[in-house]
Amino acid sequence: MTTIPDHSNHPISERQRAVEEDVVQRVVHSFDDCADPRLRRVMVSLVEHLHALLRDVRLTEDEWQVAIDFLTDAGHITDDKRQEFVLLSDTLGASMQTIAINNEAYGDATEATVFGPFFVDGAPRIELGGDVAFGAAGQPCWVEGTVRDVDGDPVRNARIEVWEADDEGLYDVQHDDGRVAARAHLFTDDDGGYRFWGIKPTPYPIPYDGRVGKMLQAVGRSPYRASHLHFMVTAPGCRRLVTHIFVRGDELLDRDSVFGVKDSLVKDFIEQPAGTPTPDGRVIDGPWSRVRFDVVLAPGAATDE
Amino acid sequence: MTTIPDHSNHPISERQRAVEEDVVQRVVHSFDDCADPRLRRVMVSLVEHLHALLRDVRLTEDEWQVAIDFLTDAGHITDDKRQEFVLLSDTLGASMQTIAINNEAYGDATEATVFGPFFVDGAPRIELGGDVAFGAAGQPCWVEGTVRDVDGDPVRNARIEVWEADDEGLYDVQHDDGRVAARAHLFTDDDGGYRFWGIKPTPYPIPYDGRVGKMLQAVGRSPYRASHLHFMVTAPGCRRLVTHIFVRGDELLDRDSVFGVKDSLVKDFIEQPAGTPTPDGRVIDGPWSRVRFDVVLAPGAATDE
Repeated sequence: MTTIPDHSNHPISERQRAVEEDVVQRVVHSFDDCADPRLRRVMVSLVEHLHALLRDVRLTEDEWQVAIDFLTDAGHITDDKRQEFVLLSDTLGASMQTIAINNEAYGDATEATVFGPFFVDGAPRIELGGDVAFGAAGQPCWVEGTVRDVDGDPVRNARIEVWEADDEGLYDVQHDDGRVAARAHLFTDDDGGYRFWGIKPTPYPIPYDGRVGKMLQAVGRSPYRASHLHFMVTAPGCRRLVTHIFVRGDELLDRDSVFGVKDSLVKDFIEQPAGTPTPDGRVIDGPWSRVRFDVVLAPGAATDE
Repeated sequence: MTTIPDHSNHPISERQRAVEEDVVQRVVHSFDDCADPRLRRVMVSLVEHLHALLRDVRLTEDEWQVAIDFLTDAGHITDDKRQEFVLLSDTLGASMQTIAINNEAYGDATEATVFGPFFVDGAPRIELGGDVAFGAAGQPCWVEGTVRDVDGDPVRNARIEVWEADDEGLYDVQHDDGRVAARAHLFTDDDGGYRFWGIKPTPYPIPYDGRVGKMLQAVGRSPYRASHLHFMVTAPGCRRLVTHIFVRGDELLDRDSVFGVKDSLVKDFIEQPAGTPTPDGRVIDGPWSRVRFDVVLAPGAATDE
């Protein structure tokens, strides 16, 4: 199943192969005295895969220097608000793979996707039917659904965190004015139901003025993410669900820059012409949209951030 | 020959395996439009090995966060004088493996080892028999040898750069006073011979107050390097040689923190009791030592830093 090229295909002498293998073995055995078996396993596997990569591509010394410079620059652009290493993990699919490894599908439970760097603890609470936008620009969007367990029973009082970018493609924390907008939390009712006003998601690029952006450009990839709305759903006795919903018809669905799209998470955002009555009687000056997202939680321990 | 564990040994369902493999394939194919075939190959191999690592160890989301924090802290401690990513590469053996890949043994040519972070361009020139110490503390050590090509012919006018730590275990650039000491360059004579006074190498730790130091401590490894004296030898028509010589009998030889030791580079540093006449008539107040290091350069293009 693996497609890792075998470096034995290169014309490498037996003497050279032995020299390289000796380096690997010396490094692997340097962890022999590690008292923590898990740490030892991770470090040994890291060393084996790292050296296999170097040997596979026959990394040049100049390329090694490029890698060191890449990491150095990524470190220097990273601060409390910018996380270039998370962007690197995201754009190499490592974040999505880690999500996949730790959130094995359970029956019909809703699938997880990447957490992203823009969640903020302590977002305001809204009542059912409230508006998460708090003034964020964008087309109003009515979002509703239920939260159920895998047996189909409603999950009451489940905590739903939602967050999204505005129609400039920016999360509140990316504006410089300290605003809190397009993020909130709410709780399901006794039937597991929930509903709120948000804004219709639009595509936006991940920050691309750093080394990760340069990498994407060099390999011919777009920094754009498919339009999405973030959800985190927690309830006692249930596995925490971190996911998004995506917009059916978005042309970026098959080239999301962080590989977050799953077919089951693509939803119909139905356009409502101006004047269409809203579910809660709110008067809206222009078109709006609506979407339904029914959540199924796997059993498990709820964990908080 | 490879010892990479096969993640198929884990009890992973076919459905889960397919989900994970799908992530890998989507990321791999995101590089399909990369116009630079070498860059594409490196990125695809990086993705394949990175994902194989994540799947092999079943990396948890908490461990992923530790990795992000590690890289972030490493980035923040790195500046013009401190390079935590090079230390990381060194202590994982990646630097030594890259050296091995790019400096395939050629006949009896002298073996290469790690460059290290302490070379400085523009070190002072000394004449043959001069002293590289420039006041650096340590036991005087007479170093002599020849530079020859693989046919045994002397290489005249070869440029030899030497640099080393003082007996506090610090290179000049690690002191705060701007000193230039224990580094110099010289040229071989018409017979390929060279000789100079230096100081006998002593063991020292790599900087260990950062994340790499914490990693070494957590896994039970020492930050110490085996005692060594750096050489870089260049001459027209010859492959540049970057290497060290090590001190026979040093108890750190088999656990050098950066895996730089090769048997062929371990040399006899012969102790000379106080009062032993020196090769050049220099009067030394105390014991001194001497070592011989005959260099053989492989053919190739000389490259400068």
